[in-house]
Amino acid sequence: MENTQQFINANKQRFLDELFDLLRIPSVSADPKFKGDVLKAAEFLAEKLKVAGMNNVELMATDGNPIVYGEKIIDASKPTVLVYGHYDVQPADPYELWTSPPFEPEIRDEKIWARGACDDKGQTYMHVKAIEAMIANNELLCNVKVIIEGEEEVGSVNLNPFLEKYKDKLKADVVLISDTSMIANDCPSITVGLRGLSYMEVEVVSSNRDLHSGVYGGAVANPINVLCEMIASLKDENKHITIPGFYNDVRELSADERKGLNSSPFNLEEYKKELKLTEVEGEKGYTTLERTSIRPTVDVNGIWGGYIGEGAKTVLPAKANAKISMRLVPNQNSEKISNLFAEHFKKIAPKSVTVKVTAHHGGEPVITPTDTVAYRAASKAMEKTFGIVPLPGYEGGSIPIVASFESILGLKTILFGFGLDTDALHSPNENYGLFNFYKGIETIPYFYQNYAEMSK
Amino acid sequence: MENTQQFINANKQRFLDELFDLLRIPSVSADPKFKGDVLKAAEFLAEKLKVAGMNNVELMATDGNPIVYGEKIIDASKPTVLVYGHYDVQPADPYELWTSPPFEPEIRDEKIWARGACDDKGQTYMHVKAIEAMIANNELLCNVKVIIEGEEEVGSVNLNPFLEKYKDKLKADVVLISDTSMIANDCPSITVGLRGLSYMEVEVVSSNRDLHSGVYGGAVANPINVLCEMIASLKDENKHITIPGFYNDVRELSADERKGLNSSPFNLEEYKKELKLTEVEGEKGYTTLERTSIRPTVDVNGIWGGYIGEGAKTVLPAKANAKISMRLVPNQNSEKISNLFAEHFKKIAPKSVTVKVTAHHGGEPVITPTDTVAYRAASKAMEKTFGIVPLPGYEGGSIPIVASFESILGLKTILFGFGLDTDALHSPNENYGLFNFYKGIETIPYFYQNYAEMSK
Repeated sequence: MENTQQFINANKQRFLDELFDLLRIPSVSADPKFKGDVLKAAEFLAEKLKVAGMNNVELMATDGNPIVYGEKIIDASKPTVLVYGHYDVQPADPYELWTSPPFEPEIRDEKIWARGACDDKGQTYMHVKAIEAMIANNELLCNVKVIIEGEEEVGSVNLNPFLEKYKDKLKADVVLISDTSMIANDCPSITVGLRGLSYMEVEVVSSNRDLHSGVYGGAVANPINVLCEMIASLKDENKHITIPGFYNDVRELSADERKGLNSSPFNLEEYKKELKLTEVEGEKGYTTLERTSIRPTVDVNGIWGGYIGEGAKTVLPAKANAKISMRLVPNQNSEKISNLFAEHFKKIAPKSVTVKVTAHHGGEPVITPTDTVAYRAASKAMEKTFGIVPLPGYEGGSIPIVASFESILGLKTILFGFGLDTDALHSPNENYGLFNFYKGIETIPYFYQNYAEMSK
Repeated sequence: MENTQQFINANKQRFLDELFDLLRIPSVSADPKFKGDVLKAAEFLAEKLKVAGMNNVELMATDGNPIVYGEKIIDASKPTVLVYGHYDVQPADPYELWTSPPFEPEIRDEKIWARGACDDKGQTYMHVKAIEAMIANNELLCNVKVIIEGEEEVGSVNLNPFLEKYKDKLKADVVLISDTSMIANDCPSITVGLRGLSYMEVEVVSSNRDLHSGVYGGAVANPINVLCEMIASLKDENKHITIPGFYNDVRELSADERKGLNSSPFNLEEYKKELKLTEVEGEKGYTTLERTSIRPTVDVNGIWGGYIGEGAKTVLPAKANAKISMRLVPNQNSEKISNLFAEHFKKIAPKSVTVKVTAHHGGEPVITPTDTVAYRAASKAMEKTFGIVPLPGYEGGSIPIVASFESILGLKTILFGFGLDTDALHSPNENYGLFNFYKGIETIPYFYQNYAEMSK
């Protein structure tokens, strides 16, 4: 790996410049107005896979955004790594809260600031450049196939059919994904647990039109008040979720497992300070680390209704809406929970309103095993570049496709993320450390080396 | 009044055309971008007061929008009527819910459709035209002073200082206002009770930035969930308001008063049908008529927070906001209630959030007496043109300035409104019946005639 590492070192600025070009493309998959940019990002990555020396590079059509594919088969007897990433990004609004514009990347404080800097353009691009470095130096020791999709931020709705259709083409031995974070730069970790997601949208309607709150207030149900009451009732005074059956399938960790989880370095005062929290809040009986990893949640992601302009308008609105999502843990099932939510939410609605509940995309919670060759190869790679054995980590976010790789392709996944919790994913001022970007590129080749050797 | 009535009849189309010109001016006082239009509406009315034959017409400066003034003093020994109206209108959004554009008035189903058609351009303009008709025919039998303000929809904040400053100039015997509604076109009424208003804006903040709901959800307070919980707690299961001290000053009506109020023609099934309600909802132990007139309320007029665009964004927002107003009844006091609300809302906030509460404009609840010359003059005028003795009516809305006329000028007010509850004030598709517009113009001159005669 000597030559590969030298190559990486010699091309650091070029790698960064290229990433900046990718970050300048506002490939927001949730918003149809960025459709053209989404495609542009796909084309950009296809071009870079070709430059990296990969073969059979193409944009593979789906019912939505195309999936970028490339492969490099060096020897059929060697193990094959399937790399997954995504080129779409979250919406960047509210724009006014960004210090620098979300699609004009810049370096400040040794960090790259842009929407997608980490999630997942920065992390995906580490793989593209590591592969380029290995191929250029004849040091690629496994076969590699890359798929980069454009709908991860909207639920990867077309990925499962794609995996089904191209089962043979995508044959591999392990999936490698960098779309998670480590505990800290001096405390690397490999994610082994991920929460799932159910994402709902609700509408509460009372009357056929907005009304004057003076004339009708008090007698006609106010859909905002009603929605608030319904949302409030979703948790009890211990912040325990009240949806019947919600916890039925939740895997309770053993005392030892909880002890292990809580031994991760974590400083509550620093956590509060970093986020300017007056106090943390969550389910009674669990620590902050547990609340964000092994316990399910109900969070309102958005709410709107009535008059939200300047000044005062005495309207009794006709309807109110909210986006409400639930983070799930093993062994909850996203569809089951979505159905439980929908059933419960309609049931608790008072007679004075009509309620509509629709489900957005969901994702299944995941636990990846640590007793595999691939995990040991990843662990050893990090040990090599960080000088420390990485811890197994639990994360609160969701990567729904991990479950799909297992069920459709029969493959385990290594969540080989180099981000940090402070990277402000999905928030204004998303960023990614230069340290992390380059450390990822350096570490990835060792994974291939270890995996090839250990698989013998 | 023969000539006056003939004059009105002969000029109906012109009166309507002029009102249309006024309705075309988007004089929205809540939104600074309509500042120029607000002034245009004031100038338009000043011009029309001159045309009507009034003297000393001028735009009188305030710290906000000017007040249009005009007077016609026929004889110092005669009683003087002070007419009040307002030329500003509510914001028209959401525009997409209007069948015809809000500032392009049109006639459909014998109704004028436009923002301000009733509230209060249509009702104010009835007075301008009635005065023109009386002056033109030498049948004006009282002195009359007119003030038309441009900030009623934003709390009339500059009216009190104006009344204080021009106490002498505004000297009169009674105030006449058409800014309320009747029970029905075949059941005229004169409003004697009006609810007051406290209008608050609240902000709930948890963290210093929007967060990823996967990474932080469960441990960091979600300000939308918290706001919902706080709002939900403002009423108990009987829809009784829980703010300590809130009901302390509420005037409870006697059994006889309640019986009288409930004897107004009211059909619950028609009410529900007209608004497409599945059910009415309100304080236990009170009828719909009582809930909208003699009982106070808490209504959320607007709420916003998090991601409200298309699709799904898994954000745990930093803050959530709401506009919350309370309708007040005699003898509640707006400032006192605003303070009680603010104190309570801060008190119920969990430690995990910071809460900001600000008060918008308020207004005092009002009861006007029925045992006055002016009330009898108004009642007789309606009896003349409708053929029915009008009922005393209770309304849910607020006209805060009625209390100001009493406290500053020492004058009682006659709420001589010709609108209907179905006019969609403050809503999309505001409208005003042609019947009501013309009936108002016809009826007003009889008030002057009766008042002059009865005051002798």
